[in-house]
Amino acid sequence: MDESLQENRTGMNSTAISPWFRPTTTHTQERDLVLLMAAGQKSYLITLRRGQQLHTHLGIFAHDDMIGQPWGTVVLSTLEQPALVLEPSLSDLMTHVKRGTQIIYPKDAAYLVHRLNLRAGSRVVEAGTGSGVLTTALAWAVAPLGKVYTYEVRPDTHQLARRNLERVGLLPYVEMSLGSIDGGFRQEGVDALFLDVRTPWEFLGAARAALKPGGFFASLLPTTNQVTDLLSGLDQHGFADVAVEELLLRAYKPIPERLRPDENMNGHTGFLVFARCMPLGIEMERWQGRDRQRYRARKRMEEEIAEEAARRAADEPDESRKYPRLPLP
Amino acid sequence: MDESLQENRTGMNSTAISPWFRPTTTHTQERDLVLLMAAGQKSYLITLRRGQQLHTHLGIFAHDDMIGQPWGTVVLSTLEQPALVLEPSLSDLMTHVKRGTQIIYPKDAAYLVHRLNLRAGSRVVEAGTGSGVLTTALAWAVAPLGKVYTYEVRPDTHQLARRNLERVGLLPYVEMSLGSIDGGFRQEGVDALFLDVRTPWEFLGAARAALKPGGFFASLLPTTNQVTDLLSGLDQHGFADVAVEELLLRAYKPIPERLRPDENMNGHTGFLVFARCMPLGIEMERWQGRDRQRYRARKRMEEEIAEEAARRAADEPDESRKYPRLPLP
Amino acid sequence: MDESLQENRTGMNSTAISPWFRPTTTHTQERDLVLLMAAGQKSYLITLRRGQQLHTHLGIFAHDDMIGQPWGTVVLSTLEQPALVLEPSLSDLMTHVKRGTQIIYPKDAAYLVHRLNLRAGSRVVEAGTGSGVLTTALAWAVAPLGKVYTYEVRPDTHQLARRNLERVGLLPYVEMSLGSIDGGFRQEGVDALFLDVRTPWEFLGAARAALKPGGFFASLLPTTNQVTDLLSGLDQHGFADVAVEELLLRAYKPIPERLRPDENMNGHTGFLVFARCMPLGIEMERWQGRDRQRYRARKRMEEEIAEEAARRAADEPDESRKYPRLPLP
Amino acid sequence: MDESLQENRTGMNSTAISPWFRPTTTHTQERDLVLLMAAGQKSYLITLRRGQQLHTHLGIFAHDDMIGQPWGTVVLSTLEQPALVLEPSLSDLMTHVKRGTQIIYPKDAAYLVHRLNLRAGSRVVEAGTGSGVLTTALAWAVAPLGKVYTYEVRPDTHQLARRNLERVGLLPYVEMSLGSIDGGFRQEGVDALFLDVRTPWEFLGAARAALKPGGFFASLLPTTNQVTDLLSGLDQHGFADVAVEELLLRAYKPIPERLRPDENMNGHTGFLVFARCMPLGIEMERWQGRDRQRYRARKRMEEEIAEEAARRAADEPDESRKYPRLPLP
Repeated sequence: MDESLQENRTGMNSTAISPWFRPTTTHTQERDLVLLMAAGQKSYLITLRRGQQLHTHLGIFAHDDMIGQPWGTVVLSTLEQPALVLEPSLSDLMTHVKRGTQIIYPKDAAYLVHRLNLRAGSRVVEAGTGSGVLTTALAWAVAPLGKVYTYEVRPDTHQLARRNLERVGLLPYVEMSLGSIDGGFRQEGVDALFLDVRTPWEFLGAARAALKPGGFFASLLPTTNQVTDLLSGLDQHGFADVAVEELLLRAYKPIPERLRPDENMNGHTGFLVFARCMPLGIEMERWQGRDRQRYRARKRMEEEIAEEAARRAADEPDESRKYPRLPLP
Repeated sequence: MDESLQENRTGMNSTAISPWFRPTTTHTQERDLVLLMAAGQKSYLITLRRGQQLHTHLGIFAHDDMIGQPWGTVVLSTLEQPALVLEPSLSDLMTHVKRGTQIIYPKDAAYLVHRLNLRAGSRVVEAGTGSGVLTTALAWAVAPLGKVYTYEVRPDTHQLARRNLERVGLLPYVEMSLGSIDGGFRQEGVDALFLDVRTPWEFLGAARAALKPGGFFASLLPTTNQVTDLLSGLDQHGFADVAVEELLLRAYKPIPERLRPDENMNGHTGFLVFARCMPLGIEMERWQGRDRQRYRARKRMEEEIAEEAARRAADEPDESRKYPRLPLP
Repeated sequence: MDESLQENRTGMNSTAISPWFRPTTTHTQERDLVLLMAAGQKSYLITLRRGQQLHTHLGIFAHDDMIGQPWGTVVLSTLEQPALVLEPSLSDLMTHVKRGTQIIYPKDAAYLVHRLNLRAGSRVVEAGTGSGVLTTALAWAVAPLGKVYTYEVRPDTHQLARRNLERVGLLPYVEMSLGSIDGGFRQEGVDALFLDVRTPWEFLGAARAALKPGGFFASLLPTTNQVTDLLSGLDQHGFADVAVEELLLRAYKPIPERLRPDENMNGHTGFLVFARCMPLGIEMERWQGRDRQRYRARKRMEEEIAEEAARRAADEPDESRKYPRLPLP
Repeated sequence: MDESLQENRTGMNSTAISPWFRPTTTHTQERDLVLLMAAGQKSYLITLRRGQQLHTHLGIFAHDDMIGQPWGTVVLSTLEQPALVLEPSLSDLMTHVKRGTQIIYPKDAAYLVHRLNLRAGSRVVEAGTGSGVLTTALAWAVAPLGKVYTYEVRPDTHQLARRNLERVGLLPYVEMSLGSIDGGFRQEGVDALFLDVRTPWEFLGAARAALKPGGFFASLLPTTNQVTDLLSGLDQHGFADVAVEELLLRAYKPIPERLRPDENMNGHTGFLVFARCMPLGIEMERWQGRDRQRYRARKRMEEEIAEEAARRAADEPDESRKYPRLPLP
């Protein structure tokens, strides 16, 4: 365990200065992140700076009108259009981030944080970083005492993520690495590890080496073929408590007199695969789910039946067909 | 804001002693919470104490066999049955808790924590406490610097929740109140508030009084009739950014050669209603969603058409029917 | 029962001439309905006529090239673009119809046909007709021996539906009425009845009068508020075996190496409400589902408890509050 | 095409005598199938016969009390328990059938009938028969002028299905074959074909031989691995318009004051795969969905990039790694 980490775990010195971690104030201050919500639910994420302006199709909003106001204030644009000054939520940060890559949805991020068992103080590895959307949610969960170690192979994506994390004030809780994970991770004994790569089954040995015993593993995959490959890999690398899950979010139109589900629904964001890293040398079959054990038992039985049938067929050459010939109906 | 809270926000002194918040160790210690997972995925949540025993249908497990062992160790019962010694996850804590009331599912708890925008240091109000399952998840999210203020009207349920929270080490982050919320909440300026009561629309004034401007509100309701009533109430009490959502979790049988969704699925855990508390005096209609505005516009138009039709009908008594009479086909 | 219907039920004379009902041929003929499927899955529904042409953005296709060809032939446009000549399916007919009103989806139409218990020979009432999409599916199910009686109040919609039904060859199995259903339906003893109107609960008396004893009733509604009103109405009008159901269709991208659900999903097409029309004078509570009976029993118990509490409160004026006063935490 | 079939298509002589196809009567008759629905929604499917009795835990019901009564009559048991005399629906027939094998659900059966484009007069092949539940729905759809050709390899299952079909009066519309389909199907030019076997991809050549050009193919599969194998097979055997779909049925508790989805939901009944049989010799890639074409294009591009990279690597041996080496963070 490297020293800087040790420091993180014993005190809060290194991180106490982040603007992210500050008792909530009743009024906005310069340098605060603000969600400006115009009518019609169009919204903007901005960092307040004296003298600056936000240009929109509803007119120009002056930062000075917002600084020092109570949260929830209404400000007017040069075209007399009103907008609400709100504290941005984690969801707002995740959805307003500049993206070069695919999206991770709040519902999945929230559930990943939960299933990776993160809390203030956790150490978690992530690969790849992407545009830093999930990194934001991970850092939010482990701050101000933990750390996210994130790896990204593409330099431009790495830079984009760094800017995004800096902007939302969560960079102090993240250690970013530019480069391939082919050679493994530099951390040991981390609490949790998340793989967002195309072939996660190729990095399970590296994942084992980084995770503490019993540590939490997760991956997000778009296709069933990948899930199948990852499940096979998890078996071979001594992971247990394996689960494959999917979350479907159904939104409703919030009209009291006409309550109904929304027609627009995202039908698929990804399959979530979870597992825990077990000590080596354990006979893992005992801790597989019942379905799995039943399947293995049935398969063994079928193989025995097939062998028996093959033996009989060799003995009695006339009855070579498994099924009776087709009779008249 | 009371003093103890003030202390919480500025330092960690009062909470640093909780067993919950402790750098993760590689070996178990006495008084650690342990998830003992036997074969077939039957598991037990126990607190390790020298000399004690756990009696199960697979035989007796001695606590002494587990104390001081590396996490992930396999121990044997008196009947030679093996079990894994694991660090319990938040999900494990939530599902192994003793329950007198209905359940809140991990997927919903995780999403509520996210949508209530909780983090280390947040202050959140909850009513009612129930058996403390959601309280556990809320405390996990705000520890070690924040606080959950939870209210429960039934003394036995209140006591059950207290024991549950104490057992999992999260009681230091929770302030429990026994009694009705008819008279409102004692907190002010809290970051978030969650209502798990039958008629949440009756407590929206109290919720406003407790929440900071822009604070996050949520409720979990089983029926559409309740959602309709709550939506009407939120309109009248100046809440904005209203959303009604549902999460469906689809689990898969994790067998690589036979990947398929599980037949057993929980078809309904509850409707989640989210909103933010806006300053009073704002003309909220402007910040309603487009569907809502379109619905109001259409309704106004229909009313005008109906009035016009009524006026015409009064003028021309012969054409009293809205539609032509039924012709022959 | 009118005479023409009687005739339908005893023989096939009146309907045998419809082009719809014809033994399937191996080659196309003039006047056949054809689904012309161009590359990229853009398709056209046309009726073959000598000398005619179909103009598309892929060039012009000559009808003469298609007439007398085996089904499945590939024809070329003037721009050398290929297209397949296919027999249109019921789904194709439903999705290619000209629409003035909202859509009914194949999944819902198929399930409605099933739950209305339709087959060749059934008599079914529908209101309103709309653009005739569901009428097409109903006629398809009851032809060539049954009849759909459909009502529509708007003359232009009625005309549109007539043209649509004529085009697909199903008009002989439909009796169309232009006019309001405020005065009821003209049929008696029908096997099934479907209401696709905004306030179906206002027409349940009329539905009873049209349905045979035990006849099948269904309605499709967008909002939960309407479902609540219809359920109340069904109770009051002696319907039984009531069910509210929803079908969600999840499509997958059919790529073997990358199998995954489609992101685009229709999150809501409508709530389906089903019931059967029982003889009057039956004490219907006995045939309600267990949930319903349990709910009524609990409600009765709660009312008794509330009465008891009110009585006690009147006797002992000091203990007027239901819950203890709020204690210090 | 064999003669008996020819007869079916030109007249109704051979089938007009089936009790299934009879104008609906207002009163029950001996030999009618009846659904006897007792309170609490327990129901029984019986064939009325003079002098017979039905023994239930609610007492004995006499058939004589039901014969000649109007549909919807209430009869009493010897224990004074009431029950409704109802005409059974297709759903009732499907769910009350004696089963030796797995279930096919009404929602899936209804959608299969729709997607296979069945109507009165269609000819459809099914393999295997199973206990005849889907056969019942197929026969219901094609009667009284069409035919279901169904194959089953296990003699006991074949017998069970025959008894089930005879009991519900649909046997005249079904031609049952006992035997393997390894040698193919005996029909030609059928309108539709449904495979409910473990390895449907092994029978696609046989399916082609039985189907008319443009004929409708479907299969129901439990696992994603099977779907992948079938999709590959359909590609190789010249099927087009391929779709993979799933139907999720969400039931609600039909209580007007407390409307809510049911907790019990069947999370998976099967993946439905649909396709149409195209003439051989067509370059099928042109008629694949856009996703599919895009995937192929991307794959080709990736292969070219990989080749290019390999070539470069061979030229410049120093830069053998695809990604830069891991730098310091």
